[in-house]
Amino acid sequence: MNSFGVNFRISLFGESHGPAIGVIVDGCPPGIPIIQEDFMTDLMRRQSGSKGTTKRKEPDLPEIISGVLDGVTTGAPVALMTRNSDKISSDYDEFRNVPRPGHADFVSRIKFSGFSDIRGSGHFSGRITWGLVAAGVIAKKITASMSISAKLISAGGSEDIEKAVNEAIASNDTIGGIIECSVKHPPLALGEPFFYSLESALSHIIFSIPAIKGIEFGVGFAAASMRGSVHNDSFVDSNGKTSSNNAGGINGGISNGNEIIFRMVVKPTSSTGTDQTTFNFKEGKMTTLKVKGRHDTCIALRMPVIVEAATAIVLADLILTDRGIHGTRKM
Amino acid sequence: MNSFGVNFRISLFGESHGPAIGVIVDGCPPGIPIIQEDFMTDLMRRQSGSKGTTKRKEPDLPEIISGVLDGVTTGAPVALMTRNSDKISSDYDEFRNVPRPGHADFVSRIKFSGFSDIRGSGHFSGRITWGLVAAGVIAKKITASMSISAKLISAGGSEDIEKAVNEAIASNDTIGGIIECSVKHPPLALGEPFFYSLESALSHIIFSIPAIKGIEFGVGFAAASMRGSVHNDSFVDSNGKTSSNNAGGINGGISNGNEIIFRMVVKPTSSTGTDQTTFNFKEGKMTTLKVKGRHDTCIALRMPVIVEAATAIVLADLILTDRGIHGTRKM
Amino acid sequence: MNSFGVNFRISLFGESHGPAIGVIVDGCPPGIPIIQEDFMTDLMRRQSGSKGTTKRKEPDLPEIISGVLDGVTTGAPVALMTRNSDKISSDYDEFRNVPRPGHADFVSRIKFSGFSDIRGSGHFSGRITWGLVAAGVIAKKITASMSISAKLISAGGSEDIEKAVNEAIASNDTIGGIIECSVKHPPLALGEPFFYSLESALSHIIFSIPAIKGIEFGVGFAAASMRGSVHNDSFVDSNGKTSSNNAGGINGGISNGNEIIFRMVVKPTSSTGTDQTTFNFKEGKMTTLKVKGRHDTCIALRMPVIVEAATAIVLADLILTDRGIHGTRKM
Amino acid sequence: MNSFGVNFRISLFGESHGPAIGVIVDGCPPGIPIIQEDFMTDLMRRQSGSKGTTKRKEPDLPEIISGVLDGVTTGAPVALMTRNSDKISSDYDEFRNVPRPGHADFVSRIKFSGFSDIRGSGHFSGRITWGLVAAGVIAKKITASMSISAKLISAGGSEDIEKAVNEAIASNDTIGGIIECSVKHPPLALGEPFFYSLESALSHIIFSIPAIKGIEFGVGFAAASMRGSVHNDSFVDSNGKTSSNNAGGINGGISNGNEIIFRMVVKPTSSTGTDQTTFNFKEGKMTTLKVKGRHDTCIALRMPVIVEAATAIVLADLILTDRGIHGTRKM
Repeated sequence: MNSFGVNFRISLFGESHGPAIGVIVDGCPPGIPIIQEDFMTDLMRRQSGSKGTTKRKEPDLPEIISGVLDGVTTGAPVALMTRNSDKISSDYDEFRNVPRPGHADFVSRIKFSGFSDIRGSGHFSGRITWGLVAAGVIAKKITASMSISAKLISAGGSEDIEKAVNEAIASNDTIGGIIECSVKHPPLALGEPFFYSLESALSHIIFSIPAIKGIEFGVGFAAASMRGSVHNDSFVDSNGKTSSNNAGGINGGISNGNEIIFRMVVKPTSSTGTDQTTFNFKEGKMTTLKVKGRHDTCIALRMPVIVEAATAIVLADLILTDRGIHGTRKM
Repeated sequence: MNSFGVNFRISLFGESHGPAIGVIVDGCPPGIPIIQEDFMTDLMRRQSGSKGTTKRKEPDLPEIISGVLDGVTTGAPVALMTRNSDKISSDYDEFRNVPRPGHADFVSRIKFSGFSDIRGSGHFSGRITWGLVAAGVIAKKITASMSISAKLISAGGSEDIEKAVNEAIASNDTIGGIIECSVKHPPLALGEPFFYSLESALSHIIFSIPAIKGIEFGVGFAAASMRGSVHNDSFVDSNGKTSSNNAGGINGGISNGNEIIFRMVVKPTSSTGTDQTTFNFKEGKMTTLKVKGRHDTCIALRMPVIVEAATAIVLADLILTDRGIHGTRKM
Repeated sequence: MNSFGVNFRISLFGESHGPAIGVIVDGCPPGIPIIQEDFMTDLMRRQSGSKGTTKRKEPDLPEIISGVLDGVTTGAPVALMTRNSDKISSDYDEFRNVPRPGHADFVSRIKFSGFSDIRGSGHFSGRITWGLVAAGVIAKKITASMSISAKLISAGGSEDIEKAVNEAIASNDTIGGIIECSVKHPPLALGEPFFYSLESALSHIIFSIPAIKGIEFGVGFAAASMRGSVHNDSFVDSNGKTSSNNAGGINGGISNGNEIIFRMVVKPTSSTGTDQTTFNFKEGKMTTLKVKGRHDTCIALRMPVIVEAATAIVLADLILTDRGIHGTRKM
Repeated sequence: MNSFGVNFRISLFGESHGPAIGVIVDGCPPGIPIIQEDFMTDLMRRQSGSKGTTKRKEPDLPEIISGVLDGVTTGAPVALMTRNSDKISSDYDEFRNVPRPGHADFVSRIKFSGFSDIRGSGHFSGRITWGLVAAGVIAKKITASMSISAKLISAGGSEDIEKAVNEAIASNDTIGGIIECSVKHPPLALGEPFFYSLESALSHIIFSIPAIKGIEFGVGFAAASMRGSVHNDSFVDSNGKTSSNNAGGINGGISNGNEIIFRMVVKPTSSTGTDQTTFNFKEGKMTTLKVKGRHDTCIALRMPVIVEAATAIVLADLILTDRGIHGTRKM
């Protein structure tokens, strides 16, 4: 279940402390210019380095393994890979017996019968999102007529994000945040009823990103307190422009041509520096766990580019799937 | 794109005002007892009738077309269907020129090149969820060891739901609400990384239900304001029981054995009785639209059973997909 | 696993002696004219009636349940169904203990743990191909620029098919045959590498038709005795026309624009009128079985239209899946 | 469309003259021992070297990129890759204007709008089957209770294969052959009706192997000349053993427990050393083409191990997909 998409289909592989991580993009149309440099801006945005993010450093350079010839996609699967270089696996030995609260250590051990790789969270690591961002770079070329932009709009409950991060660092703790993503100038009528609506497809891929715990479209949860006469977005011209945008640009799961807007909540990083009382499964008693290693105070800082990538992947897939006369695929 | 699931796979068909609506359940294990009566409780819960819901009445009796012999599933696809009987299509003629705000009239016309059936919203109608509920009845038999329960916890912003509905009726307007779903006693380790996590699968199917605009797991959006040391759920015994349940029973996309909890927002019914100023696409100018027909003041009242069904379908699919030694599928 | 196709996706349901059989076509483009009469020619060709075919008679009229409005497809799933009316289930009781040689009675009992419906072979019945033929009628409209034609070219080893059938009837036995299918004027470049080549897709659906036991493309098995210099089809003009067509119009799994040709072998009908010595699983000893019921002397007589339908379904799916600039889907 | 399988799902990537080729195995159960050495026997069988095969030499050592820890699968996707080292791309420049008869040069140029990589046939190359064989090694561990064996039973129409190859070399031409594959001791009841029968699944993957042009199960095309009373395989014991095996161990698309047998035809290698008269698309006139490069006189010599791998992949997928009580997946 490490693949997503119908006609523009990505498959992820790799573990945090394995030899390499990567992605295959199957269904990529031919003729798209793509060189290694194209990936660097987004991969750098995803990387660690700024205050509040992990000290782990990876060059993260993508190798283009297949599907590109002379700087242009050929129509064959595009495989992208990067080597893991800066890993300290001994950090993780203890978690076999004392699974970290909030992490997948416990469930992955059960699910995979004790064989899962928990070093750096293995295949559950946020590091696996490297492949999402890399595939997103290609997807953004397919969706170039739109403007996809995500940003962190609050952290730790505050809109002063820098201050919130500093306070969390000072208390040796971690915080989450809220990311908002906007798609300006989307094509009309993207999204497939009944089960591949824009909201279904976007939430599906967004919840695959580690640490996301909620998503809402348009005014989202605020709709629960609104009257229908207020929530409805009235049409004001023949292109489908609406006077308000409470629906976040989506009616019946289909883009109505207005700006697509949604927000996601990122939980606080599970690897907090403070002591945690939890269970030692080997010794069968409670213990105190202190998670060492190099972790993010606020992982949400690194996630807007991942959200953009995921969004672009969905939109590229829906463009290549649409079959209407006004859509992109013709009989 | 009218199918959902990998190994327990449902396919929906039908339109609100067509001859019939239904669902096929492919991958249903053999040996499950199923008779027509089994469907009635949930189908009645979904039905109209109570205050605040549409006056449209359908017997909604399911015909079991295939996959069941002598009251037991055979392993072949189970097809379930019900005839549409109480339909008044003339209500909808006007919406071809003046698409209703908040509805799919406009986008479906564009997407399907003018050929979409907009009578009663056609294939975009909430009526199509009949098939979800019917399939959910079978899924609930597969997930019988768990307790899946959804309820409306607020409407129009108030926890006094009856009062909120009465006020909305009085003002000839509509309201939305918030539904909470709980799964007690879930099996450990359901959910597939990377792209078929519990959250991905649940959100995917939940957003297919018309009118849902947001979903959050555990404490959800409140996590944005919490510290990691507080949000983390510490393990307290060898079964994985946790002291708190901020994660809603899900770590790394996989069930950790604690109660699975999530909430969804339902927007106010788009068909409000009040006048709406919107665009007349034929005449090319603004107009005033009054939506007649028989509609729900608060469609959220009818949706908990749909949410339960969707949840059961996801869990049944994940049970039949799991391949771990501790899971359900063995080598 | 009762679905086939990626973007033009059909799902079959029903059993030979259940209430009804049918098919859902998901991904059908909007705007295709379709009325009940359109189905009759092909459904009649598939029907019983001629010498050498079963005496079972069904009106087999298709009901259009969904996806069509005012005689035109809407873009929503097209559901087609027909009632089973002429069934005599008592014919089959004996086969629970003495599974018929060549039939699925034995394997379906094992596979579905004793719960399978074996009346008239249940979901394994050739009757289920009704849905294939019905979906094929729609697919043929999408592939209308081509000419798809299948015919029985030999029966019982003889090209004098009528004589072969008469001899088989005289000896109270059954025969098989060879069907050849030709697609004239196919579009260039249909077929998807690596795993959805024309040959992979066609053979996949063709082997789903009961009784097919072999398929070959172009000169097929004869290629084993040919030299490369002879087998290669040289190009002779700028459209890709070739001097010979040993490859059956397919290079690298992709249509090269020349006539697509393939042949299939149909085994003799398993329900032969002669006595068969086989095992009685209840009594644990050998027995003599005489299969009564109304069966086809040469089921292959009824299958060309099924092969055409399957072929049209594959081609429609590949048309809607292609993404090249010279193909049908554009960026 | 470079993926195959439902629950044991492989994805291929790479081109003949690109940096590397490989495969991802998604859905691989945890706990399977796997080390680099395990791959060598089958990869060597697939390799060039013997008389009648290409002189291209590759170490072909697989790198295990992910999904394996300490020599055991973890349940995460297994990625396997090998570098392409011995490539001479200049051999292929001419084929852009004069596509080789029998190859994908022409169709890939059309399909991918001129952007396809035709060096060494690119993604259409037989070299891509490296990934099939590598994935097959894992699949064979899942199907270890069976004995899967394929062999070349004739070449160039002769059962004296060595003589046939020598004669073809002497005449500077190429030959094809027939491969027979046998699965001894298969589990009962593998295969999924309607569209994922054993024959459908096997033929689907087998036809993805370059150069295969036909497949037949059991007696195959010979069934066309047999009477039903002769073709039927009578049961002789309570395990389902049959007196004959004309059906090749498959009834109704499901394994009946007897040996599974099928044969495939491999066309003669398209790259023959003799002159070919064909079309020059650039100059718009006929020309004489002499294919240089290092090619196989009889590619069929290298293919039995590929057929075994493909067969094991199908059987592994069907094992992990079966849901019957007597099958492998339990409720």
